[in-house]
Amino acid sequence: MSATGVGPADQKLRDLLLAHIHDVPDYPKPGVMFKDITPLLADATAFAALTGALAEACERHGATKVVGLEARGFILGAPAAVRAGLGFVPVRKAGKLPGATLAQAYELEYGTAEIEMHADAVGPGDRVLVIDDVLATGGTAEASVRLIRRAGAEVAGVVVLMELGFLPGRERLSGALEDAPLEALITV
Amino acid sequence: MSATGVGPADQKLRDLLLAHIHDVPDYPKPGVMFKDITPLLADATAFAALTGALAEACERHGATKVVGLEARGFILGAPAAVRAGLGFVPVRKAGKLPGATLAQAYELEYGTAEIEMHADAVGPGDRVLVIDDVLATGGTAEASVRLIRRAGAEVAGVVVLMELGFLPGRERLSGALEDAPLEALITV
Repeated sequence: MSATGVGPADQKLRDLLLAHIHDVPDYPKPGVMFKDITPLLADATAFAALTGALAEACERHGATKVVGLEARGFILGAPAAVRAGLGFVPVRKAGKLPGATLAQAYELEYGTAEIEMHADAVGPGDRVLVIDDVLATGGTAEASVRLIRRAGAEVAGVVVLMELGFLPGRERLSGALEDAPLEALITV
Repeated sequence: MSATGVGPADQKLRDLLLAHIHDVPDYPKPGVMFKDITPLLADATAFAALTGALAEACERHGATKVVGLEARGFILGAPAAVRAGLGFVPVRKAGKLPGATLAQAYELEYGTAEIEMHADAVGPGDRVLVIDDVLATGGTAEASVRLIRRAGAEVAGVVVLMELGFLPGRERLSGALEDAPLEALITV
């Protein structure tokens, strides 16, 4: 674990979170070590500590709305929004939202994918915090930041539970974020 | 709106929830009136009232864990779990969970689909409440009840924001639920 990009989560919180994230080798493909957060979600104490830290980040960055990225970002972003007294906006994979949407493409290892947000979900006067579980290559986080700006709202920042420090997600995201912060509660 | 299957949500809560659920005609296909809950999620007051009612249901039914069904069930189930002081277990579409899973097939209009839960996510001694946004045909809710029982845990019940009363979901679910309750905060 590196200190780079770690937010103000204290060491006790980081230890608690790390203790409930399990390594799953060769998932989703051989050679990849998957970080499974489901034990953290299932533990009432750890999940409460996590969502409390995310809610604190909402307040510290002056967020007025929370965007969660499908699907694990829903599990972290929705409780963070509720605990911070804010509304929640889902950013979804293409074709899942019923109303008028803004779409943003992003690059995958092979090819591209698209995420969508309702066009009227955020707008001028909103300061929107993006919450997700993992920052890996940064593709969906970057696309979500662009969506929020295109809708006319301000980006309060991006907060993730866990940054994969060996991938260039932070670098990729920095251009889109401009002066907005990127925080990871833990970096592995 | 009918009183059938409505839980103890009072009329003021039901009115608040209904006021933030928008009808989207011809989605996802012509002739279908889609009930869009995203305005409810985006409204801090309505979202807090909703998740408070779901947390109250967790407590009333003596739940020790909350299962949320991918993907909108994550947005309701996770905050309900946090507010009730419980752990959260995601039930996901096939192929999304990294560890050893139990899988359960269910029938769609055409063909079948499968949902999965980590095999060790719940077990003997757990009383598990299933939370989802909408009860339509009841296929995924029924499959989740079977998964929980197969893992050796007790089913505390199924609670949804909204029951589509013109579909046979309640009837389909009743056999699997046995004596466990099905509650809908609103029925449309």
